[in-house]
Amino acid sequence: MATEAELIATLSRVFGDTPIRADLLVGIGDDAAVMKESGRALVACADMAVEGVHFRRDWSSLAQIGGKLAVANFADVFAMGAAPKYLLVTAGLTPDIGIKEIEELAIGIKQQADSVGAIVVGGDLSSSPVLTISMTALGEMPSGRSAITRSGAHIGDRVIVSGIPGYSAAGLAALRAGRADEFASVVELHRLPKLDRNLAEAFAVAGVTSMCDVSDGLLSELGHIARASGVGIQITSASLTSPVLEEVAARLGEDAWEWILAGGEDHLLIATTSGVIPEGAIEIGTVIDGNSIRVIDRDVPSSSGFRHFG
Amino acid sequence: MATEAELIATLSRVFGDTPIRADLLVGIGDDAAVMKESGRALVACADMAVEGVHFRRDWSSLAQIGGKLAVANFADVFAMGAAPKYLLVTAGLTPDIGIKEIEELAIGIKQQADSVGAIVVGGDLSSSPVLTISMTALGEMPSGRSAITRSGAHIGDRVIVSGIPGYSAAGLAALRAGRADEFASVVELHRLPKLDRNLAEAFAVAGVTSMCDVSDGLLSELGHIARASGVGIQITSASLTSPVLEEVAARLGEDAWEWILAGGEDHLLIATTSGVIPEGAIEIGTVIDGNSIRVIDRDVPSSSGFRHFG
Repeated sequence: MATEAELIATLSRVFGDTPIRADLLVGIGDDAAVMKESGRALVACADMAVEGVHFRRDWSSLAQIGGKLAVANFADVFAMGAAPKYLLVTAGLTPDIGIKEIEELAIGIKQQADSVGAIVVGGDLSSSPVLTISMTALGEMPSGRSAITRSGAHIGDRVIVSGIPGYSAAGLAALRAGRADEFASVVELHRLPKLDRNLAEAFAVAGVTSMCDVSDGLLSELGHIARASGVGIQITSASLTSPVLEEVAARLGEDAWEWILAGGEDHLLIATTSGVIPEGAIEIGTVIDGNSIRVIDRDVPSSSGFRHFG
Repeated sequence: MATEAELIATLSRVFGDTPIRADLLVGIGDDAAVMKESGRALVACADMAVEGVHFRRDWSSLAQIGGKLAVANFADVFAMGAAPKYLLVTAGLTPDIGIKEIEELAIGIKQQADSVGAIVVGGDLSSSPVLTISMTALGEMPSGRSAITRSGAHIGDRVIVSGIPGYSAAGLAALRAGRADEFASVVELHRLPKLDRNLAEAFAVAGVTSMCDVSDGLLSELGHIARASGVGIQITSASLTSPVLEEVAARLGEDAWEWILAGGEDHLLIATTSGVIPEGAIEIGTVIDGNSIRVIDRDVPSSSGFRHFG
């Protein structure tokens, strides 16, 4: 397969060859698209999950699988400073999936939709040789608020996160080691990450200058912000310590910093701000001149989630 | 797998357990959902296509596969009386798909989006063991127009279609028979059905009382309208004759009426009206009292597309 950068370049070229439309406020390349709709901005994003690639049915229930993809979509809407309102779901179902299993999947999706005040308004079901789920979340920008993109970070801004990332990666490591029972709390966060909608709203209200959610790992997402904003970012690992993750890592013989700096799927929010830091947010660094991400007190793990883009 | 009726009942139960929201004008069960957005109604629908289930790569190019799914989505938006504006695309890509193939897929989607004035605003790419594409189309109701659902047919209304259905099914039959070259014109319509956006708009402007697109076959879709509206429908096959389809059927040793009455994927529009019939539309029957679909001058084929629901 092609690299992500090649893919984005190709798709931007094909789909970008369109007359500029004044109603498209944010196009391809951010967490979600933003469209102006008679005075109100509409936010839309889509995510797909494939069995064996994104989830395993012996590791997660169907309710968790559906719920987790809903969380990923809602996090993208929150990352624009918007509120999720609607969800559309398509699913390719394997022959072993009957009514009971579909209901379980639907209930998992519904619970997450309920928790953010969104409703499922449509979708499509198909048969498929591999269980595949795709969702589109639609949200609305509150009146008077502009979409918070990845490109607004300024030198001198402070970098904040809505929590310590890495718990999902730790849970995945425990599942891979066959020790899920021993590490139930992190495994649960892998199966179904928690969205903090209040903190998401607090980030938006605080007027953060850029924001995205942690889908692919902290350093990777900081890279997205830095690249889109034309800046560098410097963080300190001291602000990101987690005794829980360190203990899990020690017992599994793994590196907690790999999880914290490069583990994905926590769906926390990362933002940059020149103003007041919302209560509950963690300050982890500063926006600097340059074009790289630096962890000033630790070697960066050579992991999949991070690529230098200088 | 469960029947479609069981699926819809289960999903309606799970997702319908939501406080009534004044902003949801049309929910699950029609061609698309319709949401009120600060004075303007937003229309959203989703469709998925899976290799081996909906398409074969030795029968259709990637551009046609992507374009056809876009057509299916846009047809659902038109079937509500709305205009497509945005498209989100997710795709699960097999390892043999590289940049060139992704570009071809994207170009096919873009061409159809261009043809209806819609733009691709987002999506997601994943790896997958089977090529799977999912799309969400978003549209807008013109100011002052209400969504045209399946439930507005009244006894005495006339039934109209935007063209003779069955060409896609005929093309599929030719492909199955290994005789695509011989029947290129119908095969092309199977690979990429044609949307008539002007006639779609004419149906909406004419104030049709109900409307849906032909995804699953004419009788099946008439059944959707009849059931949703609590009426019966009577059509005459004489209004639906097609010398082209009859010739293709004769040469392939098949039944053209099977294609016309039960063949899917033409994405034509069916509507009921008590007013003027738009130019280009074909009158095929009448809305009657009752709860069944009758073809008064022909036996109904015992095909997959039709189920009696009395």
